[in-house]
Amino acid sequence: MTGSAQPRQPEAGVRYDVFHTDCPARDVVDHVTSRWGVWVLISLRSNDLRFYELRESIQGISEKMLAQTLRALVQDGLVWREVEPATPPQVTYGLTEFGRDIGEPLTELFDRITQRLSPRNAG
Amino acid sequence: MTGSAQPRQPEAGVRYDVFHTDCPARDVVDHVTSRWGVWVLISLRSNDLRFYELRESIQGISEKMLAQTLRALVQDGLVWREVEPATPPQVTYGLTEFGRDIGEPLTELFDRITQRLSPRNAG
Repeated sequence: MTGSAQPRQPEAGVRYDVFHTDCPARDVVDHVTSRWGVWVLISLRSNDLRFYELRESIQGISEKMLAQTLRALVQDGLVWREVEPATPPQVTYGLTEFGRDIGEPLTELFDRITQRLSPRNAG
Repeated sequence: MTGSAQPRQPEAGVRYDVFHTDCPARDVVDHVTSRWGVWVLISLRSNDLRFYELRESIQGISEKMLAQTLRALVQDGLVWREVEPATPPQVTYGLTEFGRDIGEPLTELFDRITQRLSPRNAG
């Protein structure tokens, strides 16, 4: 449309406008801000964690939802997954550089919400 | 438990730990990062908007989901709602101070995702 010179366009018609359902970035935004995605990303900020550790730290998440959430985040390149060949196999998850980059504003977001709602600021 | 001196405790047993389902802040975090909450908050960052304008700017949202999302955000104190007595009544939505405070890290989050996924950085 605009004819501006960009180094490369992956596909004609792909729009990098997250308000449009055909924007590739929208999937990632949706995963990051999904019902459980936020909690997984925040949990992994301080430490790499095993599957069961993640499950224990996020109250209310089912095993199925956690597996599904992790799969999406791994696909997006936000989380890495490492399988140690033990019996039973140990699976560890951690944040990639991209995940760490996203985790910063996400943590800021939560800090602001909890600060605002904390009893110390309610009076 | 810890016996630390805090100015006031709203209710015994209320935990300000967003990883727990009984944390009052968790509802707000869930609304902010809900399927549509993020898009509404981001849309309102630049301008106050009418209901139909919000609907037009967020592709894929239904009227029902938009109404539901707005109701939750108004209840949380993130968005205000103003009805002008016209025929038909004009309803306008905008960000409260709390909403604006949250909008900052939320925008930062989206900027980082779109920057990372934009074709200019993919090569």
